[in-house]
Amino acid sequence: MKTRGPGTVYLVGAGPGAPDLLTVRAARLLGEAEIVFHDALVPKEILALAPNAKLVAVGKRSGRFSTAQQFINKQLLDAARRYRSVVRLKGGDPMLFGRAHEEIEFLAAKGIAVTIVPGVTAALAASAELGISLTRRGEARSVTFVTPRVGAGTSKSSWLQAALAADTVAIYMGAGQGSAIAQALIAAGKPGTTPVAVVENASLPEMSVSFTNLDGLRVLAAPAGPALILIGEVYREAAAALGLRRSASHAA
Amino acid sequence: MKTRGPGTVYLVGAGPGAPDLLTVRAARLLGEAEIVFHDALVPKEILALAPNAKLVAVGKRSGRFSTAQQFINKQLLDAARRYRSVVRLKGGDPMLFGRAHEEIEFLAAKGIAVTIVPGVTAALAASAELGISLTRRGEARSVTFVTPRVGAGTSKSSWLQAALAADTVAIYMGAGQGSAIAQALIAAGKPGTTPVAVVENASLPEMSVSFTNLDGLRVLAAPAGPALILIGEVYREAAAALGLRRSASHAA
Repeated sequence: MKTRGPGTVYLVGAGPGAPDLLTVRAARLLGEAEIVFHDALVPKEILALAPNAKLVAVGKRSGRFSTAQQFINKQLLDAARRYRSVVRLKGGDPMLFGRAHEEIEFLAAKGIAVTIVPGVTAALAASAELGISLTRRGEARSVTFVTPRVGAGTSKSSWLQAALAADTVAIYMGAGQGSAIAQALIAAGKPGTTPVAVVENASLPEMSVSFTNLDGLRVLAAPAGPALILIGEVYREAAAALGLRRSASHAA
Repeated sequence: MKTRGPGTVYLVGAGPGAPDLLTVRAARLLGEAEIVFHDALVPKEILALAPNAKLVAVGKRSGRFSTAQQFINKQLLDAARRYRSVVRLKGGDPMLFGRAHEEIEFLAAKGIAVTIVPGVTAALAASAELGISLTRRGEARSVTFVTPRVGAGTSKSSWLQAALAADTVAIYMGAGQGSAIAQALIAAGKPGTTPVAVVENASLPEMSVSFTNLDGLRVLAAPAGPALILIGEVYREAAAALGLRRSASHAA
């Protein structure tokens, strides 16, 4: 079912993982797509919504191998010249830690039409599962979403200052860095007793949640897969109710 | 079509406004609902997805009148005792500035089952429409979502520090406070030349966008409806390309 290009490239948020947490628009575009370039982490149940499309796995958000961005850009351009409807499917939302701008700018410079479809981001899906709001009227009125680069001092962006100043913090792509993140926050003055929730696979049947605090995060084994680290006073009650992991502060 | 309760209360994110930016799950639950309590701002095209439900408007996010939270809680409880499927539909996502915890805690204490369905939040929909990512690899790795209370010095939460420390800031429910927000940020040291995008009605046909900077925001007329204020260097190119409103700094 090939039609003549140039077509449109749809940058589509795949949401947190559950197929029915796609938007209605995203589901429709997948059904109409002739070719779909997807993050390696997008579940197969979601890809099944694109029965007529050629499926191409690109990138891997938390793995060892990832397709070079320039090569993805080139593949999208070639596809747009050949197909009418090209979907680039990204986990979560494309505009939040999705590196979407690199694809948008490249395609725009080549004269390719790009349309972006937002998605449910992981922190919102995790909050729904936990039943704990990221914000609380009068108590938590700021939430910061960050991707840390622990030890990277040369960046123009300081994730640490942003994380320290917010009432609630959602750390994306922090798997494997939990200990270093906790150490950095504590060293900068955040109390070790600050509650933490680590959520893996939010919205999927295999979801897991660990409640701890920053002292505990410092010694917590790194999750195997992608995980979201949520930090803030809003998690205190839930952590207490579920039996907060003993603080590691005595051992420090 | 009344069934015997107690039923489940679904706290459902209605997304930014476009009906097809609901999640598939939200659309299904609306179709099955017997009664829907909705924010006054939820578009009628979305309410039309609940043809079998009694519709009850509660709350108003940016208006003068809002139904008292205690009264909403009581209505939800009564409905859960009478109907099998009760939907509480909130603009955007329930767990981000949705005051969901007040309803969750009340219903949980009464033994009512509550299920939360996340939604696409306004800042992500606005970013999709603008074609500008909230984050940029290596340049903008933190995004803060805040609701300001300008001049409210007694809160435990400082929106200002959180906004100052982040690379990109999304201000929710800031309509009518743009000038005061800009003044506060500038007084705290944020450069008046920091780019700003003000987005009204993201995802809807009547969407409007104004690019300016903090100096300009200080003198910009307040939007009539709910607006999202986006602040950060990621908006500089777009603002420049579209003709940045002249800085008001000369007049200051």
